[in-house]
Amino acid sequence: MTTIERPQFKVIGTRPVRPDGVEKVTGRALYGADVHPPGLIYGKVLRSPHAHARIVRIDTSEAERMPGVFAVVTHADLPAVSEGLQDLGETAVNVRELAENILAGEKVLYVGHAVAAVAAKSPHIAEEALEKIKVEYEPLPPVLDVLEAMRDDAPLLDENRRTKSLVGEPESDRPSNVAAYNRFESGDVEAAFATADVVVEREFRTKMVHQGYIEPQNATAVWNQDDTVTIWTSTQGAFTVRAQVAQLLRLPVSRVRVVPMEIGGGFGGKIPVYLEPVAALLSRKAGGRPVKMTMSRKEVFEATGPTSGTWIRVKAGATKDGRLVAVEAKLCYEAGAFPGSPVNAGAMCMLAPYDVENFRIETYDVVVNKPKVAAYRAPGAPAAAFAMESVVDELCRALNIDPLQFRLRNSSREGTKMVTGNPFPRIGHEECVRAALESDHYRSPIEGPYRGRGVASGFWFNGGFQSTVMVSVNPDGTVNLIEGNTDIGGTRASLAMQLAETLGIPYEDVKPTVVDTDSIGHNDVTGGSRTTFATGLAVYEAGMEVRREMMARAAKTWGVSVDEVEYVDGSVRQKSDPSKVLTFKEIARNQARTGGPITGKASLVARGVGPAFSTQIVDLEVDPDTGKVTILRYTVVQDAGRAIHPSYVEGQMQGGVVQGIGWALNEEYYYDEEGRLLNASFLDYRMPTALDVPPIETVIVEVPNPGHPYGVRGVGGVSIVPPLAAIANAIYDATGVRFTELPLSPRRIVEALHGLRDE
Amino acid sequence: MTTIERPQFKVIGTRPVRPDGVEKVTGRALYGADVHPPGLIYGKVLRSPHAHARIVRIDTSEAERMPGVFAVVTHADLPAVSEGLQDLGETAVNVRELAENILAGEKVLYVGHAVAAVAAKSPHIAEEALEKIKVEYEPLPPVLDVLEAMRDDAPLLDENRRTKSLVGEPESDRPSNVAAYNRFESGDVEAAFATADVVVEREFRTKMVHQGYIEPQNATAVWNQDDTVTIWTSTQGAFTVRAQVAQLLRLPVSRVRVVPMEIGGGFGGKIPVYLEPVAALLSRKAGGRPVKMTMSRKEVFEATGPTSGTWIRVKAGATKDGRLVAVEAKLCYEAGAFPGSPVNAGAMCMLAPYDVENFRIETYDVVVNKPKVAAYRAPGAPAAAFAMESVVDELCRALNIDPLQFRLRNSSREGTKMVTGNPFPRIGHEECVRAALESDHYRSPIEGPYRGRGVASGFWFNGGFQSTVMVSVNPDGTVNLIEGNTDIGGTRASLAMQLAETLGIPYEDVKPTVVDTDSIGHNDVTGGSRTTFATGLAVYEAGMEVRREMMARAAKTWGVSVDEVEYVDGSVRQKSDPSKVLTFKEIARNQARTGGPITGKASLVARGVGPAFSTQIVDLEVDPDTGKVTILRYTVVQDAGRAIHPSYVEGQMQGGVVQGIGWALNEEYYYDEEGRLLNASFLDYRMPTALDVPPIETVIVEVPNPGHPYGVRGVGGVSIVPPLAAIANAIYDATGVRFTELPLSPRRIVEALHGLRDE
Repeated sequence: MTTIERPQFKVIGTRPVRPDGVEKVTGRALYGADVHPPGLIYGKVLRSPHAHARIVRIDTSEAERMPGVFAVVTHADLPAVSEGLQDLGETAVNVRELAENILAGEKVLYVGHAVAAVAAKSPHIAEEALEKIKVEYEPLPPVLDVLEAMRDDAPLLDENRRTKSLVGEPESDRPSNVAAYNRFESGDVEAAFATADVVVEREFRTKMVHQGYIEPQNATAVWNQDDTVTIWTSTQGAFTVRAQVAQLLRLPVSRVRVVPMEIGGGFGGKIPVYLEPVAALLSRKAGGRPVKMTMSRKEVFEATGPTSGTWIRVKAGATKDGRLVAVEAKLCYEAGAFPGSPVNAGAMCMLAPYDVENFRIETYDVVVNKPKVAAYRAPGAPAAAFAMESVVDELCRALNIDPLQFRLRNSSREGTKMVTGNPFPRIGHEECVRAALESDHYRSPIEGPYRGRGVASGFWFNGGFQSTVMVSVNPDGTVNLIEGNTDIGGTRASLAMQLAETLGIPYEDVKPTVVDTDSIGHNDVTGGSRTTFATGLAVYEAGMEVRREMMARAAKTWGVSVDEVEYVDGSVRQKSDPSKVLTFKEIARNQARTGGPITGKASLVARGVGPAFSTQIVDLEVDPDTGKVTILRYTVVQDAGRAIHPSYVEGQMQGGVVQGIGWALNEEYYYDEEGRLLNASFLDYRMPTALDVPPIETVIVEVPNPGHPYGVRGVGGVSIVPPLAAIANAIYDATGVRFTELPLSPRRIVEALHGLRDE
Repeated sequence: MTTIERPQFKVIGTRPVRPDGVEKVTGRALYGADVHPPGLIYGKVLRSPHAHARIVRIDTSEAERMPGVFAVVTHADLPAVSEGLQDLGETAVNVRELAENILAGEKVLYVGHAVAAVAAKSPHIAEEALEKIKVEYEPLPPVLDVLEAMRDDAPLLDENRRTKSLVGEPESDRPSNVAAYNRFESGDVEAAFATADVVVEREFRTKMVHQGYIEPQNATAVWNQDDTVTIWTSTQGAFTVRAQVAQLLRLPVSRVRVVPMEIGGGFGGKIPVYLEPVAALLSRKAGGRPVKMTMSRKEVFEATGPTSGTWIRVKAGATKDGRLVAVEAKLCYEAGAFPGSPVNAGAMCMLAPYDVENFRIETYDVVVNKPKVAAYRAPGAPAAAFAMESVVDELCRALNIDPLQFRLRNSSREGTKMVTGNPFPRIGHEECVRAALESDHYRSPIEGPYRGRGVASGFWFNGGFQSTVMVSVNPDGTVNLIEGNTDIGGTRASLAMQLAETLGIPYEDVKPTVVDTDSIGHNDVTGGSRTTFATGLAVYEAGMEVRREMMARAAKTWGVSVDEVEYVDGSVRQKSDPSKVLTFKEIARNQARTGGPITGKASLVARGVGPAFSTQIVDLEVDPDTGKVTILRYTVVQDAGRAIHPSYVEGQMQGGVVQGIGWALNEEYYYDEEGRLLNASFLDYRMPTALDVPPIETVIVEVPNPGHPYGVRGVGGVSIVPPLAAIANAIYDATGVRFTELPLSPRRIVEALHGLRDE
């Protein structure tokens, strides 16, 4: 671990057992599938077989008459639709598009698009009933590729869509699949290119990939007779589910209670709603019976949000002395059926490692006949970094400069302007590159035919957003921590540790609990690498309130002014006589007699977000006969700001790398020409297994975030950003072939090495 | 309704639908019996057939070997026992006695005393297994009556028990069934009696009676492998259950999560634990399987806590002009098998309606071979009031003074000293008596043979204690109210109404939720008439925090100082320009952009408790042939301080009266000489039904409690205090016979009227 400064923490930096560990390994933890209210019935979704078609007619009458069927719903049953979409008012999501995606209206826009849903007394009857629903489609030509979709003559997903310019240019009167255009620029790009000694320009392509969480989407809902709705679901954000369901069902949010169950992976993909509003609607129509819905793996692949396929062109120039002087880029991202690709995040991340004054990046958010994309771990950044870091690698080779030294020379640092024009706060990219340079891995040679080494850097903003926590001191001196963030990657532990540190008590004395949306103030999603940072800030503030109250109680007990006491190491003592001490447990035990329950609470929008960088090194070997790539050694260096629980930080670093390896080498949404996904199973959608990757070596860099009392930045996102480029760079090193299209599957490599296809 | 002063409330005083109403009438509300975790097994308790016996030996081996049996536990399995009781430290309960009552140790002390428990895969197997447990008893003579138990030659429940004097007298070296002696005195009683023109002295007896809640005790518990325990139970106080279970199981309280289910009645009887620790122990021994236990009605009667049987002597003297000058009383209360009768509460309540300077009250807390008593609605007060108010009635008759005028003349008021010596705050006894005098009921004549009218007053302290609530403002301007008090008598509504009033928003916009012990700070029991008052105070404080935050957000939005804005009627406006207004909903909608979630929280020990008085009038008719008493008309006048939800206040007033009528006329624990309860069913234990009582007329008096922002006092307790005496006084009025022993059953009345027995 490379640590810039480290105060004497007692809890932070240790590796205790997670509070939810025993429940999970003994099978007691309750996931979405484990909810079975009395009288439960089962919902299933009828999905479009067409990638693009007009819905002429839906006849549900036969299904409705089937014995054992309680309810059938379609788009028109959504209250947001039946009550007129135009009145919905301000919301973070486009409700019309959300409603269209939940249950298709006039058109289906991808294979797997939900068209109707049935609730019946068994899943089997529900499936049979789906077959009785008659849908008359008028098929339309689909468009499946981002560049195809941008053509003037492309089939249009929405005749009314006009390209929205985010830089204020006048709206075209021509309909388009390009939902949004944006531009980031600085300096004089053309003049700067003129000063460059080397210029590299390349085009890159990546395919849609899925987060690949193990647990499929699920929802159990009950609509009570007083129009209150309870939903149990595996989600990254119970309050987000609540807001979206309330919008669609046109209920006040207080009428919707969302109970976040344990979650079997999300990575961004469990933020949007799919089944939740449908299950609620079915329950209402079924007389209030609870309705359970669970997706099959095929449905997860076809109908939930993967991340964008992309086309990216990058042109970059550098001088002989290794200065990056100009970058020009065009990023075109597939949004899927509805707008909202992470293309602007990609644009904002790709240059973040570099202090480059002259750039122009154009972005295009493009709809295609594929599922609407969702967030996926540092959304938008990996594809953009794949392009940028590949071009940088080529520049380094052209200039014969060590690629890490090049990154060090051009590294962004505190004060460097981001592409948005705002200056970076204290960041740790240089420290990451230095740690990579000094690593055993980078100092060890790599030798042998078809073996190569690649490096790349990556960036993620990390998130702030809203958090609320409550802290309650028990009479025995243990503490309950009440929070509303789904624990995906160990946040129960990382939050409990921060509270223990703040209060100066043992970690084991803190019991964290994740509660439902009725039982705590607002919390934004567990996502964007925000929770340990932002909810951690709330934990710190609530803990400080407890400390102040503890001091007040001790002062009251002694009959002195609160100014005369101080809180040191989990005890309150008198400043004038440090032998006069009341411990946390003593004050806790007496709380009923000194003023009642001692509690703390904090609600905030987290300021002081600390961005994250990661620099990675990969050694690999290419089998020239089969095209198989074997990862020989992998090191991930990452600035955590402060690693609260190093094991979980390492786990996040390793997990992101493994997902990046899968994306680089094997994963892709593989469509036929009519827009049917051909590999919608874990057998065919090839994710890395434990046999495919070596142990991932981790180097935690700690450049504390000055915006957080313990220096936390957030660690979940950035590690997935560099692997795509690092692996492509290593394959170039191993083979001399510059690959620009993912995945780097055996077929593509064999074809390229044997000249069967141009790369 | 008699209202002393009434500000212009918008929500308080209205009668909205209760938030939990729909769930309850549609059968969706979850009670203790509705919890069925996967893998559930069932526990049953083996109970003593003897009222008093030494346990020589327990052989559980055969039961343990039975197929389908997972666990058998006895007293020795309680961790508090096996780890040595002496180390348990400070607690509100006597852990040794609690452990002895949960599972008997050396001795059984009442019929129904738990001796062992079994968990098996079905309730039937568990019951069969109970029969296989061999217990060898050495029977001992039981003592069943309080006066018998106080005799020097009485059988001793505990050879080591010495009478504890609460007035500092030296401890006797003689063992005794009198657990505690206390004395309250003031003035010169003998001298005062010498000035009296009339002195009345009487002895009274009341029997043990049960609260008669519909839902039997139940508990479902699971002991996880990390030694955390979850318990679902119907309880008046989840935090009390947590504390007691943690003590018995020797776990930190944070390891015990208690989930309070809906409750089918409690009245004080659902404060102690019975099944909860046993279910947890069985779960641990059964490898962590969840264990469910539910009592039969017989078990509820035999093994949970009724209230004390009593013997009371009262001597009171008054002057011709109707001044009460002296009172002397001796109160002996049965505690059941372990100490803890409410005798001191009885002593403190009986004189509360009167401003009397000279008194001496002696109290005796006495153990007998019957179940340990529990709280029952204004515990201790009804029996003492029965005695005192009967004697006052006799004084009034002797002096020929109207009994309400006598009470008015002698009424306590603000500043009158209580028996403890502390002065009363603002109280409303005079107002209650005046309202009774002015009532249509009292001004209507009662005529006819064997018809009579009686009146009586009663007092209850009301409770304060600890409460914690949290308030969260939703983006749509609705508000979540998170609390930890079981809703027995409508506290979801009464708390939500206070929050709505505080915030100036509609009641329907507040959604209250009762959460478990992991999800909110400490809350004491729903009991002692404390919740609407004390938790209401917390609600008010949390609401005021929200108001302050709302003002800060509005000021920030306008760019003015917070001093320049004010909160009026659910909006914030600028003082200098009242046309500049931001509504609650507008500020709520923008909260994410103005600083994050708006929340409030309060934790407190409630100060400013407002005591309650009730004065009641009853007309009745006695059938001289059968002894049956028919209640003709009943009016309850009660000072609520402020009736938040008048319907629920009236319901509490009526409910207390009905329970008092049952206690007065029919209810009693009927034992044979060997201590077997002969009427342990609702068929034989005769509670009033709807056919037995007329509509109870209610007069709510509102003398606002200055210790509460809305004047709340608390209403659950006091209405049960006067009925016993009011009815006895009315029977005297109807028959000329002064009854001093309850219940006033047909047999007792017939025997008295026909001279078959002395009364």
